Amino acid sequence: MLIQMKVTELLAELGSNSPAPGGGSIAALAGALGGALTAMVCRLTVDNTKYTEVQSEVAGILAEADILSGDLAACVDADTEAFNNVMAAYKLPKMTDQEKAARSAAIQQAITHATELPLGVASSCLRVLALAVRILAIGNSNAASDAAVSGLMAHAGLHGALYNVKINLGSIKDQSVHADIQAKMARIIKEDECLHNELVAVAGKVIG
Amino acid sequence: MLIQMKVTELLAELGSNSPAPGGGSIAALAGALGGALTAMVCRLTVDNTKYTEVQSEVAGILAEADILSGDLAACVDADTEAFNNVMAAYKLPKMTDQEKAARSAAIQQAITHATELPLGVASSCLRVLALAVRILAIGNSNAASDAAVSGLMAHAGLHGALYNVKINLGSIKDQSVHADIQAKMARIIKEDECLHNELVAVAGKVIG
Repeated sequence: MLIQMKVTELLAELGSNSPAPGGGSIAALAGALGGALTAMVCRLTVDNTKYTEVQSEVAGILAEADILSGDLAACVDADTEAFNNVMAAYKLPKMTDQEKAARSAAIQQAITHATELPLGVASSCLRVLALAVRILAIGNSNAASDAAVSGLMAHAGLHGALYNVKINLGSIKDQSVHADIQAKMARIIKEDECLHNELVAVAGKVIG
Repeated sequence: MLIQMKVTELLAELGSNSPAPGGGSIAALAGALGGALTAMVCRLTVDNTKYTEVQSEVAGILAEADILSGDLAACVDADTEAFNNVMAAYKLPKMTDQEKAARSAAIQQAITHATELPLGVASSCLRVLALAVRILAIGNSNAASDAAVSGLMAHAGLHGALYNVKINLGSIKDQSVHADIQAKMARIIKEDECLHNELVAVAGKVIG
């Protein structure tokens, strides 16, 4: 498993001449790192008497950030597995008509999964970004740059995941799946833009 | 060392209630991951007969991306060490005038280093972004989303590092150091904006 590797090993594996792991896994990792940073800022805020009024809200953000970070960490390996499944489907035999049909169906199934998975990563990253914006506004101001970096990582992970959606989308033949994914992407991009603008604005006020 | 930890261990350490490691280390890690992804796209391009014309340029990008990724990975631990040194300086004794003067000098030295270090990270991330834009344009188109994610990680690492510069800058008393860092930040932000716009434009053409 990629997330059981040392960071140095992951960097070496990433930079190697094998196409997997690639950008999809790194987009998920960016989101997981962002979630962990938001969780840290929450932990530096709860039980701090300076922030008594926001305790219950911060506890809620912390619980959600921990779950999102764990989910996104699991997607690091899931994305590479999904990519490998697509490659495996393309290598299925295609001599007879029956083989061709089975191969085509397997490719469509694998590509659809490899497209929906990063779409889910983008959706989780959007949520991490929302939590980062909020903890930046109400959390421990000594950790403001950590909250800001959390949001930036989630924003980058989101767009990175969407590039992985887009590069696969062209291979999906089912037009209803196409339309559904396009609509979900459009909503995520719109909400991300608002939240990223807010992150930069709040960071400008709190950090300078 | 943080980069000798497993990814899961790093995520747990990051999310804990200790202020270090924090956003500065993660900004450097984002840049290192971006550098590794650009190196991967280079390796998937060199020796590919479809890309014969760009071999020597891609070899140059690969060599530089490998170095940048290694340098940025080293900054993951260096940033946390710089932060810990600032904390240690603040804890120095301040009973006598002599102690106060020594403590103040130690704080200024530690904070200046903790500001210049992320400025260097931002500068290296800017270079990774430039390489990512170029390899996205000329490299193996099957790895276009990887090149795009590489650029996004470098862009996020750059701005994350700059938030760490900004949060420390207010504590630096030497106005000439202030002005020098402000000027360097302004140049980096300007060049990043151009390169990020180019990344999005080229990705839009290549990926969709």
